Amino acid sequence: MHKLPLLAGGLALSFNLMAAVPNNEPVQPIEAAKATDPAKVELGKQLFFDPRLSRSGFISCNSCHNLSMGGSDNLPTSIGHNWQQGPINSPTVLNSSLNLAQFWDGRAADLKEQAAGPIANPKEMAFTHTLALDVLNSIPQYREAFRSIYQKDEITLDAVTDAIAQFEETLVTPNSRFDQWLNGDAKALTATELEGYQLFKNTGCVACHNGPALGGNSFQKMGVVEAYQTDNPAEGVAGLTGADADRFKFKVPTLRNVELTYPYFHDGAYWNLEEAVDVMARLQLGRKLQDEEIAKIVAFLKTLTGEQPSFQLPILPPSTAATPRPQPFE
Amino acid sequence: MHKLPLLAGGLALSFNLMAAVPNNEPVQPIEAAKATDPAKVELGKQLFFDPRLSRSGFISCNSCHNLSMGGSDNLPTSIGHNWQQGPINSPTVLNSSLNLAQFWDGRAADLKEQAAGPIANPKEMAFTHTLALDVLNSIPQYREAFRSIYQKDEITLDAVTDAIAQFEETLVTPNSRFDQWLNGDAKALTATELEGYQLFKNTGCVACHNGPALGGNSFQKMGVVEAYQTDNPAEGVAGLTGADADRFKFKVPTLRNVELTYPYFHDGAYWNLEEAVDVMARLQLGRKLQDEEIAKIVAFLKTLTGEQPSFQLPILPPSTAATPRPQPFE
Repeated sequence: MHKLPLLAGGLALSFNLMAAVPNNEPVQPIEAAKATDPAKVELGKQLFFDPRLSRSGFISCNSCHNLSMGGSDNLPTSIGHNWQQGPINSPTVLNSSLNLAQFWDGRAADLKEQAAGPIANPKEMAFTHTLALDVLNSIPQYREAFRSIYQKDEITLDAVTDAIAQFEETLVTPNSRFDQWLNGDAKALTATELEGYQLFKNTGCVACHNGPALGGNSFQKMGVVEAYQTDNPAEGVAGLTGADADRFKFKVPTLRNVELTYPYFHDGAYWNLEEAVDVMARLQLGRKLQDEEIAKIVAFLKTLTGEQPSFQLPILPPSTAATPRPQPFE
Repeated sequence: MHKLPLLAGGLALSFNLMAAVPNNEPVQPIEAAKATDPAKVELGKQLFFDPRLSRSGFISCNSCHNLSMGGSDNLPTSIGHNWQQGPINSPTVLNSSLNLAQFWDGRAADLKEQAAGPIANPKEMAFTHTLALDVLNSIPQYREAFRSIYQKDEITLDAVTDAIAQFEETLVTPNSRFDQWLNGDAKALTATELEGYQLFKNTGCVACHNGPALGGNSFQKMGVVEAYQTDNPAEGVAGLTGADADRFKFKVPTLRNVELTYPYFHDGAYWNLEEAVDVMARLQLGRKLQDEEIAKIVAFLKTLTGEQPSFQLPILPPSTAATPRPQPFE
């Protein structure tokens, strides 16, 4: 898939970017996925849906990044192995290939690195990479698919996460009504929705929520003007760097498909877009928006719902006598 | 979908049945699904995949009847709300429309009645029918779909379970290699597989595992010749009737797709088909099979894997401000 230069290399290439932008808008359309290797994508899709990558045999990538529900689980924080409560809201997998890094704190450089995380996280899938590979290596159809694609006799973590990442690269949502408008269809938006977009820009939301994903391309402090009140102990980037300046810095989430990805913020504390817009304007921009302004911005945000990835439910190859058995209750 | 008379009305109509059977075999091919109402099937599919029918917002019908995995969860007993351990093995939903009744003890007359059970079972989805309907009624797209199909302003449990059942009626698996053979393709099976089928008949397995589903059409005692050893307290039909004669009587499970629906028996205690065949022959038929006989029967059983239902992953309509929120941790 084509990546816009702004995401990959910073601002130096913004001339290129501007050239591709209708009306010089700070938001660019989502491009359709270009699947370069269909066999790899298909394999990655199977893995994405395979709960045997978890200790219980019950939790797959799709459990918390549910592609029936905007690539999220629509829960404040996720349910992990043994019904453990996750520490942070599961971000949508949709358009995640456009993120400058993965996880709320950016601790994974890319989708491939991210994919390895939850499998071995004791609060999520609670497995080990070794056992996950033992499961896959015990299944002839998986071995054959990996052998044919990666030219190796043994399935490796590198290949597994590569295939999952390749599938995830296809999970983009082009052709939203807003993108139709960006591409020149003046009738794609109502007057109210357009006013909402103007307010979105004039209020300052667009300072962080820009680019094709309307976010995902920078880390910002949650609570710039006013502190964000939450019980969630996550400290954001500071958890990695230890730097005081990084406290409560999180990756700006994409606003693409935001109507589908409730509840909002890293703690999932807000269920309604109206509330989320109000909180953001106050805490990040020091602006108290009127209800009708919020309503217009929300009307605009709902035009960002694109075509959801559409594909056949994958059929998984069966386990064999050699497959390590799931351990849901031990 | 066409139902064979044997399942609906007993033996009186067996002349009709015989007329349709190639070679007068005691097993008949699975017929392809005839979707009579595509809109209803599509709605039922959405509901089947919608975890908002559970208290947690995390468990859907597909969680335990996973259509990527033979319509089962491939666990001995299922994981329910709050990670509770289910009491009995989740039967496959594939070809379940051919069952004479639903659940291991047949306590639901049909798929429609079955569908209401897990939603309100505190060990499974742990919701209430009232709240599940509140969720659906709060979502305009669901209201519109139900209104258009069922001509009512309010979504009812009757309509919900009807739509789910209509979707489940489509979950048949025709065109297995064995069905190709039944339909006259002599080369569809190997010599070993055919020998397995002969052994399956001659040993007596076919006494209970017959009809198009190779099972699902009678209740039989688990442990006829020799008692079945298990820690599972389920008593089968006796749990409904209280009759001593019904102790350990369970619905005979289908053998269609049995390669995909491990682990086996009502307690899910056996993972390998070889073991399951050995146990069945000893306990039900008083026969100790040789390893090579078992291998041939297993080879035959693996020819019963049919075409898995193939469809687009459904996209679910989003919740609204009026939607009752999931309660995963309360």
